Amino acid sequence: MNRQAFQDLYPEEFCHCYGCGTLNEHGLKIKSYWDGEETVAIFEPRAYHTGVSGYVYGGLIASLIDCHCIGTAAAAKHRTENPDGEAETLPRFVTAALRVDYLRPTPLGVPLEVRARAEQIKERKVVVAATVSAEGEICARGNVVAVLMPEGMMTKAGEI
Amino acid sequence: MNRQAFQDLYPEEFCHCYGCGTLNEHGLKIKSYWDGEETVAIFEPRAYHTGVSGYVYGGLIASLIDCHCIGTAAAAKHRTENPDGEAETLPRFVTAALRVDYLRPTPLGVPLEVRARAEQIKERKVVVAATVSAEGEICARGNVVAVLMPEGMMTKAGEI
Repeated sequence: MNRQAFQDLYPEEFCHCYGCGTLNEHGLKIKSYWDGEETVAIFEPRAYHTGVSGYVYGGLIASLIDCHCIGTAAAAKHRTENPDGEAETLPRFVTAALRVDYLRPTPLGVPLEVRARAEQIKERKVVVAATVSAEGEICARGNVVAVLMPEGMMTKAGEI
Repeated sequence: MNRQAFQDLYPEEFCHCYGCGTLNEHGLKIKSYWDGEETVAIFEPRAYHTGVSGYVYGGLIASLIDCHCIGTAAAAKHRTENPDGEAETLPRFVTAALRVDYLRPTPLGVPLEVRARAEQIKERKVVVAATVSAEGEICARGNVVAVLMPEGMMTKAGEI
């Protein structure tokens, strides 16, 4: 497993995301890595990230899938265009659509493993499928349609 | 608009949700209300709930849709079964599936309005459609398949 997280390779002006920004001090700081052809992120929810007591909040699971898939889209796009080169920075994608199927209650108090794979890589769009597992059992499946950040959004974010 | 929030009518043992639990001191405390045949929740994200600077984090939007739709499912189920009665408590639904389409970047720094409507109400399942708007413009659409909390989950949550 390559130990450089995708989120550490975003340009600094795009590192403020609540889910995965290295510069958001209140955020979740989700970190995603290559693991062969798949990507992986490990995240241990805090005790207050509960939905029903004893189980993880569904909105947190959606957030894990969102940020991990957006990171996967960026890394997969880079790898497709640079098959032999390590990334120094990654392109910044945003979420066009997010889908999560909650297959079983996700237990709180153990690390969650988020795994993903880019299923389609196009000019400006990457489709990513993900699972979230606890103790080796898949608890949720999701997918994300990721699109390259629109120009206007990039300009505004750069100004702030 | 009826001023009793749906989330204030969940049984106390199910009030710990990070998104909407009245007893989760770290949580978002999303509050949902009837407004005619629709339901509404107003939420102002904090400055750190950013995705790209200047815009709201997509995982937060997913969380708003999730909790507001689960509340809507509970209130709609109750209203169908008790057309003339105000609710004293509401049944607790959980999320089976969540879908969000992000139509445009959602500006940070203004209150968001989440509106929803129950589209199907069955024995144990309610399907809810929602929008999230900022300054009168719809920024995201979503839907949730809500199911009555499974028996085993209810027992475990009651023990904690």
